[in-house]
Amino acid sequence: MKVIIVGGVAGGASCAARLRRLDEKAEIIMVERGPYVSYANCGLPYHVGGVIEQEASLLVATEQMFRAQFAIDCRTRCEVVGISPKQKAVELKNHVSGEVTTEKYDKLVLSPGAAPIRPPLPGIDLPGIFSVRTVPDARNIREWLERGVAAGSCINTYTGFQTVTKPKRAVVVGGGFIGLEMVENLVHRGLEVTLVEKLNQVMPPLDPEMARIVERYMVKHGVRLELNDGVAGFQQSTDGSLEVLTSAGKRHPADIVILAIGVRPETALAKMAGIEIGQRGGIRVDEQMRTTNPDIFAVGDAVEVRDFVTGQWTLIPLAGPANRQGRIAADVIAGRDSRFRGTQGTSICQIFEAAIAQTGASEKILAQLGEKDFEKIYLYPNSHAGYYPGAKMLAIKVLFRKSDGRLLGAQVLGEDGVAKRIDSFAMALQMRCTIYDLEEAELCYAPPFGSAKDPVNFAGMVAANILRGDVPLGHWDSVDGGFLLDVRNPPELAVESVPGAFNIPLPQLRARLGELPRDREIHVFCRSAQRSYYATRILLQNGFEVRNISGGMLSRSMVVAK
Amino acid sequence: MKVIIVGGVAGGASCAARLRRLDEKAEIIMVERGPYVSYANCGLPYHVGGVIEQEASLLVATEQMFRAQFAIDCRTRCEVVGISPKQKAVELKNHVSGEVTTEKYDKLVLSPGAAPIRPPLPGIDLPGIFSVRTVPDARNIREWLERGVAAGSCINTYTGFQTVTKPKRAVVVGGGFIGLEMVENLVHRGLEVTLVEKLNQVMPPLDPEMARIVERYMVKHGVRLELNDGVAGFQQSTDGSLEVLTSAGKRHPADIVILAIGVRPETALAKMAGIEIGQRGGIRVDEQMRTTNPDIFAVGDAVEVRDFVTGQWTLIPLAGPANRQGRIAADVIAGRDSRFRGTQGTSICQIFEAAIAQTGASEKILAQLGEKDFEKIYLYPNSHAGYYPGAKMLAIKVLFRKSDGRLLGAQVLGEDGVAKRIDSFAMALQMRCTIYDLEEAELCYAPPFGSAKDPVNFAGMVAANILRGDVPLGHWDSVDGGFLLDVRNPPELAVESVPGAFNIPLPQLRARLGELPRDREIHVFCRSAQRSYYATRILLQNGFEVRNISGGMLSRSMVVAK
Repeated sequence: MKVIIVGGVAGGASCAARLRRLDEKAEIIMVERGPYVSYANCGLPYHVGGVIEQEASLLVATEQMFRAQFAIDCRTRCEVVGISPKQKAVELKNHVSGEVTTEKYDKLVLSPGAAPIRPPLPGIDLPGIFSVRTVPDARNIREWLERGVAAGSCINTYTGFQTVTKPKRAVVVGGGFIGLEMVENLVHRGLEVTLVEKLNQVMPPLDPEMARIVERYMVKHGVRLELNDGVAGFQQSTDGSLEVLTSAGKRHPADIVILAIGVRPETALAKMAGIEIGQRGGIRVDEQMRTTNPDIFAVGDAVEVRDFVTGQWTLIPLAGPANRQGRIAADVIAGRDSRFRGTQGTSICQIFEAAIAQTGASEKILAQLGEKDFEKIYLYPNSHAGYYPGAKMLAIKVLFRKSDGRLLGAQVLGEDGVAKRIDSFAMALQMRCTIYDLEEAELCYAPPFGSAKDPVNFAGMVAANILRGDVPLGHWDSVDGGFLLDVRNPPELAVESVPGAFNIPLPQLRARLGELPRDREIHVFCRSAQRSYYATRILLQNGFEVRNISGGMLSRSMVVAK
Repeated sequence: MKVIIVGGVAGGASCAARLRRLDEKAEIIMVERGPYVSYANCGLPYHVGGVIEQEASLLVATEQMFRAQFAIDCRTRCEVVGISPKQKAVELKNHVSGEVTTEKYDKLVLSPGAAPIRPPLPGIDLPGIFSVRTVPDARNIREWLERGVAAGSCINTYTGFQTVTKPKRAVVVGGGFIGLEMVENLVHRGLEVTLVEKLNQVMPPLDPEMARIVERYMVKHGVRLELNDGVAGFQQSTDGSLEVLTSAGKRHPADIVILAIGVRPETALAKMAGIEIGQRGGIRVDEQMRTTNPDIFAVGDAVEVRDFVTGQWTLIPLAGPANRQGRIAADVIAGRDSRFRGTQGTSICQIFEAAIAQTGASEKILAQLGEKDFEKIYLYPNSHAGYYPGAKMLAIKVLFRKSDGRLLGAQVLGEDGVAKRIDSFAMALQMRCTIYDLEEAELCYAPPFGSAKDPVNFAGMVAANILRGDVPLGHWDSVDGGFLLDVRNPPELAVESVPGAFNIPLPQLRARLGELPRDREIHVFCRSAQRSYYATRILLQNGFEVRNISGGMLSRSMVVAK
C-alpha cells in the first residue's frame, strides 16, 4: 500500500500520522509545497502581534520528526505539479533542486488547504500588502513592521539625517476571523488600525446584531471601522506609503495593508484529477472523505462538507474539522468505517478583552434557507455568580426549533466564560439535544466558575417557557402596534428610556392592572427580560394579551441604532 | 390552593418564585428559620476570606423582594415546630415574638437543607470553633478573625500594655468542598492553616490519585496536611487558645477551628410528618420530588436523589440540583409533569490557582458497586494550544463502559480551562454519549481558548483506541511481571527514571525491535503516553504483546509514593 498525501499542515499531517499508526507497513509520502509542515497557522496573527514571540513555537512538528518518529517520507518545498488518475501517479517537483519525478500511488489524499483571496485590484501587488497564511507570510509582516519603512520618513532639517519611521497606520481589509485577529494584534503593537469590510457587519458567520457588540469592542480600542465599503484598489503615495481606495471613494492612508478577505479552496489539483467540485467551490467528498475518484481522498479547507444542522454543503476552513477529516481519511484507507458527521461551524475568536463564539446555525442562515420552524432568544446572564468578583455579562443568542425544541445554534459573546458556554452548547447540539435538556443540564458551579443556574440552563429555561406557552415572545423589531410596558424602576428610566413606553415598576404591577389596555397586545420589557418575564406571567394570568421582549433593553441597544 | 414552603434558600426560594410565576392565585407562604432568605451560601467561604467584601453581596434576594415582587408571604426567623399531616397543618413559631400559630396547607414543600455535622466531641462547644453554613456563621468567623483574641496575647514587658493579637493559626477539620474553600480563604487571609482529614484523601468524591494533586496544591501553599487522622476533641490552653486533639494522639494548636466534616440532611420535620427517610439518611422522594405523603414535597440538600450514572440513591448537597428540584416541585404542584433526571454530581472547587472538577461516577464508586464493565484512562493535555502563552497542563481521568463505550464519569484538575472541560463532559454524560461521540465533538478552537484537538476530543480518541483494540491499556498498578519499556529520550531519563525500565527512544524503536522480548508482555511508557502510544502501535504490528501505560510518567507521580 502506497499513499501520497498532498499538503502537510492540519489535515494532511493528521492523516499521515494516523495512517502510520494504523498501518506500520504502508509506504507514506507526504509532500508540502512550503518550507514547513504541521505548523500552527492559527497562531500566525499572534506571532505578528508578538504575543507568540518565537517563530519556532509555531512549528508543532518538523519534517525530521515525521521521518524519525513516523517513518514517513516527508518532503517539504515539494509540489504536485501533475496528476494522472488513470496511471494513479503524480508528478512531484522539488523546488530546491528543480527536479521533477513521478510517483505512483494506491491512494492519494489531497489536503491542499485554501488560499487567501487576492482580487485582481489595481495596485494589489504593491509592497506592504500582505496576506496571512504561512509562516513566511508572518515573517514578512513582522520584518515590515520592525524594519521601518521609507513611508512617512522625512529629512530632519536640523540634523540632515533621514529618519526612518516604523509603520504606524495599518489597514486591514476584511472583518472575518483572520481580519479581526490581525486588527487586535496590530493594535497590540501600537498601530493605528482601520478595518475595511464590504458587508454591513464584521464576522460574517454571526448574526448582525451580535456582530454589533464585536464592532463596539473594535471602536473602544480605537479601531476605525469602515463597514459597507469594499476595497477598489491601492496606490503608492509620493512618500512611499500606501493608500487604500474604496468603492465609496474613500482613501485610507496606510503603512501596511493586511488582506483578509477570505480564503478559496485550492482545487487546482482536484480539477487536474477530474474529480467533482461542489457548488461552493470546494472538493466534493462523501462522509468518508472520498472524492468522486475512489482512490483519491480530500480533507481540510479544500473540501465541502455537510452542515450538521442544515444539511447544506458548506466550506468550513477551521483546524478542528480538518484534523478530524485527516484521521477519517486515514481510517478509511486503512479499511475502517469512520465517517465525518458534518460540521457545526463551532468557532471562537478573541476580540481584545472579549471573545465571540458560535456553534450551529445562525438566524440569517435559517432565514436564507426559508426555514420558519425556529425561534430565537437573547439573554444576558453573568459569566459566574454575580456576588463573586469579576463576573462579566455574557450576550447569548440561542436558536431552536419551535416544533420539537431541538437546539439549532448559539452565539455567545463576553469577557469571561465564553468558550465554556459555547462548548456546552456545541456538545449539546452534537447530541441533538433540546432546550428542555439544556434546562436540566447539570453543569459545574462554584462562585468563581458559574452559577447555580448556569447561563446554559438559563437559556434552556427561557426557551422552554416559550415552547410551553408560558411566555409569548416578543422582539424589538415586531413591537409595532403594541402597547409598550416598561417594568423597570424609575432610576433606570432616568438613565435610558424608550419613547412611548408606559412605566409600571414590577412591584406595583398587581395593584395597577387597571391602567393597562385590554384591547391591545402589551409588549413588556425591563433591562434583561427577567422582571418582564415575571410581569408577563402576572398579566397573562389576569387575562391580558402580552409578549415579553427578548433580552429587554440590552437587546434594544443591539438592534436600535444610536 | 395554599402552599407552605419550609426553608427559603436555594430549593425553597426557587420553588416559591417558580410557583408564583405558574400560579398567580396560589397562596404561598415561605418560612425560613434564619434571618435571611435566598442567600448565597456557596459564597460564605469567600466572604470569610475577604474576596467577597460585603456581606450584603451574599443576599441575592430579600424577604421584602419576595413580598413585593412575588406576592409571597415570606417569613424569616419563623420555624415550623409541628406538622400534622392528617390535618394538613403546620405550627409556626415566630422567633421574634415567640408566638406560635397554626397554618393549614394544601401542599407542603420541605426544603430545610442539611446541617453541618457537629459530633459530640469533648470541647466541641468551646469558643472559637465554627461551622460555615449561614450568613451569621460567616459574620461570627470574620469577627473572630478581625477582633483579635486573647489567645497568644502577652504583656509587653517594656510598655506594660497587653497586646491582643489576631488569630494566626487555624485548624480546618474536614477536607471536602467547604473545608478546602475555607483552607484557601484562611491562607488568603494570612493564617497558618492545618487541615485534618480522617480519610486518606481530601475531597472524598474524587478518586484518591486525583486527590493527590489537590493535596500538592495545599502543601505548596504552606498548608499542613494531616490525613488519616480524625479529631478526638478540643481543649482550651491556659493562654486561651485552642488545641485540636486527634485520634492518633496529635495536638494541633489553633486560634480558630473550622468544622467542615460534612452535612447531614435536616429530617426532623420529615420524621415528624411520618414520611419515609432513605437509607442514606435523606428524605425519600420520587422523580417529581413528592415524598411518601402525596401532599408533601421535599427538595434540596435534605433529600436523597438517584445518581444518574449508577442509579443508586445518593445525597448531593449542591446548589444546582437544589434549584432545579425546587422548580420541579413547583411545576408538579401546579399540575405539570416535570421530572428530576437524577444527579451527575457535577461539581467544581477552586484550589488556590487551580480547580478540581468532576461529573458522573468515580472509579471508587464503580468499584464499590462491584462494577466490572468499565475502564479508566488518564491524560495530561494542555488547556489550550501549547504554542500560545499561558497554556497549563490539565490532569484528566475518564471512566467509560467497556461494552458500549458509554461515558461514565470524568475528573479534571488544572490551572486553566477546567470548568470548560467538565461542562463538556457533563453535557455529554447527560446526553448519554459514548467516547466515540467525544472523539468527534466539535468544540471551539482558537489559540487562546483550546486546541484543534480539544482535551475532550483527545480523551475520546484515547478511549476509542482502547475499545477498538488498537491500544491495549496498562496501568502502573498492574505492571508486575511485564517488561517495562521507556521510549523517552535520554535527557528526560536523566531527570527521572523508572527502576528496571529498559530505554529505547521512540525514533530508534523500529531499528531495535530485536532487543525486546517476545515471551513477555511489554509495558511501554513515556511522559504522557503519547509517544508510548506510537510505540505500542509499532510493537503490536510487529507481533509483540504490549500495553500502553495510561498517562505515563505523569500518572506514575500520582500513584507511586515519593
